[in-house]
Amino acid sequence: MHRYRSHTCAALRKSDVGSTVRLSGWVHRVRDHGGVLFIDLRDHYGITQVVADPDSPAFKTAEMVRGEWVIRVDGLVKARTEDTVNKNMPTGEVELYAQEIEVLSAAKELPLPVFGEPDYPEDVRLKYRFLDLRRETLHRNIVKRTQIISAMRTGMGEAGFAEYSTPILTASSPEGARDFLVPSRIHQGKFFALPQAPQQYKQLLMVAGFDRYFQIAPCFRDEDPRADRLPGEFYQLDVEMSFVTQEDVWETMEPMMTRVFEQFADGKPVTKEWPRIPYDVAIRKYGSDKPDLRNPIVMEAVTDHFAGSGFKVFANMIASNPNVEVWAIPAKTGGSRAFCDRMNAWAQSTGQPGLGYIFWRKEGEKLEGAGPLAKNIGEERTEAIRTQLGLDEGDACFFVAGEPSKFYKFAGEARTKAGEELNLVDRDRFELCWIVDFPFYEWNEEEKKVDFSHNPFSMPQGGMDALNGEDPLTIKAFQYDAVCNGFEIASGSIRNQSPETMVKAFEIAGLSRADVEERFGGMYRAFQYGAPPHGGCAFGVDRIIMLLVGAKNLREVTLFPMNQQAQDLLMGAPSEASPTQLRELALRVIPPQKKD
Amino acid sequence: MHRYRSHTCAALRKSDVGSTVRLSGWVHRVRDHGGVLFIDLRDHYGITQVVADPDSPAFKTAEMVRGEWVIRVDGLVKARTEDTVNKNMPTGEVELYAQEIEVLSAAKELPLPVFGEPDYPEDVRLKYRFLDLRRETLHRNIVKRTQIISAMRTGMGEAGFAEYSTPILTASSPEGARDFLVPSRIHQGKFFALPQAPQQYKQLLMVAGFDRYFQIAPCFRDEDPRADRLPGEFYQLDVEMSFVTQEDVWETMEPMMTRVFEQFADGKPVTKEWPRIPYDVAIRKYGSDKPDLRNPIVMEAVTDHFAGSGFKVFANMIASNPNVEVWAIPAKTGGSRAFCDRMNAWAQSTGQPGLGYIFWRKEGEKLEGAGPLAKNIGEERTEAIRTQLGLDEGDACFFVAGEPSKFYKFAGEARTKAGEELNLVDRDRFELCWIVDFPFYEWNEEEKKVDFSHNPFSMPQGGMDALNGEDPLTIKAFQYDAVCNGFEIASGSIRNQSPETMVKAFEIAGLSRADVEERFGGMYRAFQYGAPPHGGCAFGVDRIIMLLVGAKNLREVTLFPMNQQAQDLLMGAPSEASPTQLRELALRVIPPQKKD
Repeated sequence: MHRYRSHTCAALRKSDVGSTVRLSGWVHRVRDHGGVLFIDLRDHYGITQVVADPDSPAFKTAEMVRGEWVIRVDGLVKARTEDTVNKNMPTGEVELYAQEIEVLSAAKELPLPVFGEPDYPEDVRLKYRFLDLRRETLHRNIVKRTQIISAMRTGMGEAGFAEYSTPILTASSPEGARDFLVPSRIHQGKFFALPQAPQQYKQLLMVAGFDRYFQIAPCFRDEDPRADRLPGEFYQLDVEMSFVTQEDVWETMEPMMTRVFEQFADGKPVTKEWPRIPYDVAIRKYGSDKPDLRNPIVMEAVTDHFAGSGFKVFANMIASNPNVEVWAIPAKTGGSRAFCDRMNAWAQSTGQPGLGYIFWRKEGEKLEGAGPLAKNIGEERTEAIRTQLGLDEGDACFFVAGEPSKFYKFAGEARTKAGEELNLVDRDRFELCWIVDFPFYEWNEEEKKVDFSHNPFSMPQGGMDALNGEDPLTIKAFQYDAVCNGFEIASGSIRNQSPETMVKAFEIAGLSRADVEERFGGMYRAFQYGAPPHGGCAFGVDRIIMLLVGAKNLREVTLFPMNQQAQDLLMGAPSEASPTQLRELALRVIPPQKKD
Repeated sequence: MHRYRSHTCAALRKSDVGSTVRLSGWVHRVRDHGGVLFIDLRDHYGITQVVADPDSPAFKTAEMVRGEWVIRVDGLVKARTEDTVNKNMPTGEVELYAQEIEVLSAAKELPLPVFGEPDYPEDVRLKYRFLDLRRETLHRNIVKRTQIISAMRTGMGEAGFAEYSTPILTASSPEGARDFLVPSRIHQGKFFALPQAPQQYKQLLMVAGFDRYFQIAPCFRDEDPRADRLPGEFYQLDVEMSFVTQEDVWETMEPMMTRVFEQFADGKPVTKEWPRIPYDVAIRKYGSDKPDLRNPIVMEAVTDHFAGSGFKVFANMIASNPNVEVWAIPAKTGGSRAFCDRMNAWAQSTGQPGLGYIFWRKEGEKLEGAGPLAKNIGEERTEAIRTQLGLDEGDACFFVAGEPSKFYKFAGEARTKAGEELNLVDRDRFELCWIVDFPFYEWNEEEKKVDFSHNPFSMPQGGMDALNGEDPLTIKAFQYDAVCNGFEIASGSIRNQSPETMVKAFEIAGLSRADVEERFGGMYRAFQYGAPPHGGCAFGVDRIIMLLVGAKNLREVTLFPMNQQAQDLLMGAPSEASPTQLRELALRVIPPQKKD
């Protein structure tokens, strides 16, 4: 028989009754039922119930073992009596009568219980991550993580992509977030950087003719701790294709990613054909470029109904500035004064002056728009608004007025708030969409200049002609995001592979040809030697896993995360370098300055 | 029709004749045959011949294009005449009559030619890697690399393993090679390290109950440049299993890796059942723990034949030191004085006093051992040696004497030299084996102390009893390597998962419990809370790919390698950090000291 096991702890069935078998695993828990000991023996695969009665030669050892000890058990498989069968366990029809127990590894008193996985402070869980990872939920999340990533790899392979690993020790990238630096010992005083993403390398791969690249790529950003991002490293499904339009990227990734979602959605519906929503439309309808489409609320402009109306606040704003609009946030089933007041109070708590509303109720036989706004604009305009939005008795509508660029974010938050408060959001589904046609540039109010909105490597729609002839702030890019349930899960673009268009695009953002050469020399040079049209995207692997396992925190889907202070409590990192290490790197640590 | 292509450049066949199609790709080369232009159009998938004659509306553009321009070609597929069919190309039965050519991207004069891939200086190839990677051999190597790694992933999945990514920003490891450090910005003066291997994490995964781990793991060692290793990063197929003996590791990895080799061996034979050779035996037979088993030479001790013989040099050594042995290196077909003298001269060139030999020739009807050694020991002993080694007319044998621990390396080199010079090595096969039972400790002559031979985390054979009772230098470890054609391709062990045995093992190597706690705290702590018996190995991915594609240099199987001076010439790394970056990290670069 094998030294440690003939079966895993998930393997035994009724058909094994009568066999002598060997199991190894962790003592999940021990129960004493009238002198007979029941040990739930656990391994990666499952749990089997081990029984030791006082007649068993193994009883003495069984009495000794405690939770999380690792033991080997030899014994006889017996059928459970009908009343003790556990239908919830694959091994629930049998139990193992222990004939011999060997302690393979004892455990000291546990700083973190495994059985029952009670809540425990985060720092204990991180320091004793090897115990935390034995707990059912986290263990299952991590297993699912490996399966999801494996399914992505399989899907990409089936779509004709090969996985290429790009360098991790690379050059500092002057755009985007902050780099992690790696001092060079051989070239003292110089530094490598860890890649924020393999953006330049994947584009170079296209220039090198590889056609369809993907990578489950580790990425590194030295950012200040944020609740929705782990310090240090994260993974993306990085994709690039040659000789494609943006439609090709969507038509490749959408079915692949839909299948991955369906495979791990536990039967929840997944959008099969992802709507392609222009950025401008998303902002107007949802107040966000990351709309949660599970929320059925769609905003509409109702400016005309307020222009020249008796509600002077809005009417005067409209009259004095042609850019002013009034947006309506229809809220079905929200038609009570209590709810509308609660929304108003919430708006004030976020720093807004308030949130105007109308709600509809029956006054006798008559449907009536209620609230101060309705009074001010009168019955006819109130009814026109109701008709436009398709609202009815028991529904409400909120209004936001001003320049949309200034209020759309708040309007989007109000939409989310109303949808959630009214339980309009169907949580048990995955709603996916593409947000497309992002603006290429944006106005930097602080520096009074034009900046790239997203990726400076994207191709402006209209190409060189647009850059030469159009108002930069009206130019769209071949740039797109994928969004799921209100979270951005991917971002991508068709790249600007023409060196001259690249120089022009940077010039509009205030950067010279020399700047381009200095900052993106590798790529700029490459584009001068025959660069194919290409584009791609990157899906956020950690975020997708979080959505699919229903976790609230990235640490719940990550093997060995750092804490929010960017420390690895398990391994004790970061730590001080030795004098030898620093000398070899020609570095000196500047001691912190004493504060007076 | 698609914006860029209806087919790839490898797709068109005779059955497509008559179709109008669209291709995009690089101009591989242009030939002018009596005014008709032939363009070999190349993409990732293949090459298609495009024809433009002066009547074609595309002729003007065709005249303009140069090597490595990216173009789109619309045209009509025609069958080639029988005498122009190229059987060596999948598309060789057709050609594309160009009706329209669009230049998608022009190319400046090439610093590195792609067509014909002539030899070029390494620094130009690395700086223009995007061109280098278009060259047929390197492009094919890299594609094969992705396929080999993908096959490893598939194989591991089929064997019941899941792939887990371990952290890349981790703690400095105090053993092994030099770490790359990453300064922490949030904890100024402290440093992360890049993992030399995920050794501790994979063991922690076993302690966390994950049972079967693998990872195509990036590893980082800051070593001085060496011909057989790229600076910076490399990849290993990292594997760990719980509740296993070393036989389980071998029986899992051997068939999986054999299949990968067979899949990419281009029909060359691959060892199906890898011999398991104890370290001591490998040293005695092959003079190496990385024996090239394609070399049929097997060494044997022939000490007795020299003891008390007339060859006083050896006889006196044997008489004066019981540790002295004489090893024979039989060299079939090497039986000429010219060859034996060449071997002797080679030995002297490596610093040896010489290499004694006997060779056998016919003297009339009689088989005679020739050379000074044969004369000295006489006919009878000479014949006994010949019989022991199974040698015959035309064969030779070389002899090395002394303490085996001091001469075995040279003996191994002589075995290799003889095998290669005599063409005994069959280059067209993959000979794989396990080297097992490595010594646990070795004697450090410089520091006059006992050191770990390999991995301090390995389990000593005999466990705590052996550590307590045996001469440390006689203890073997459950430690093994896999070897292919003379290269170590994997290393592994059953781990020491008992904290007390670990402390004892380190004590023998002169390290205290406190040292263990300080240096391997994460793992030492983990072993106290129920650690399963576990073991694994790591296969060198880059080395295996190199063997399978037949490359002589790791740069020929790596996408974006650094040069031998640890610089990335393409991206310009390492480079200087900005004052802001250094200030944020609280680091100062110490300027190089002027030499007088």
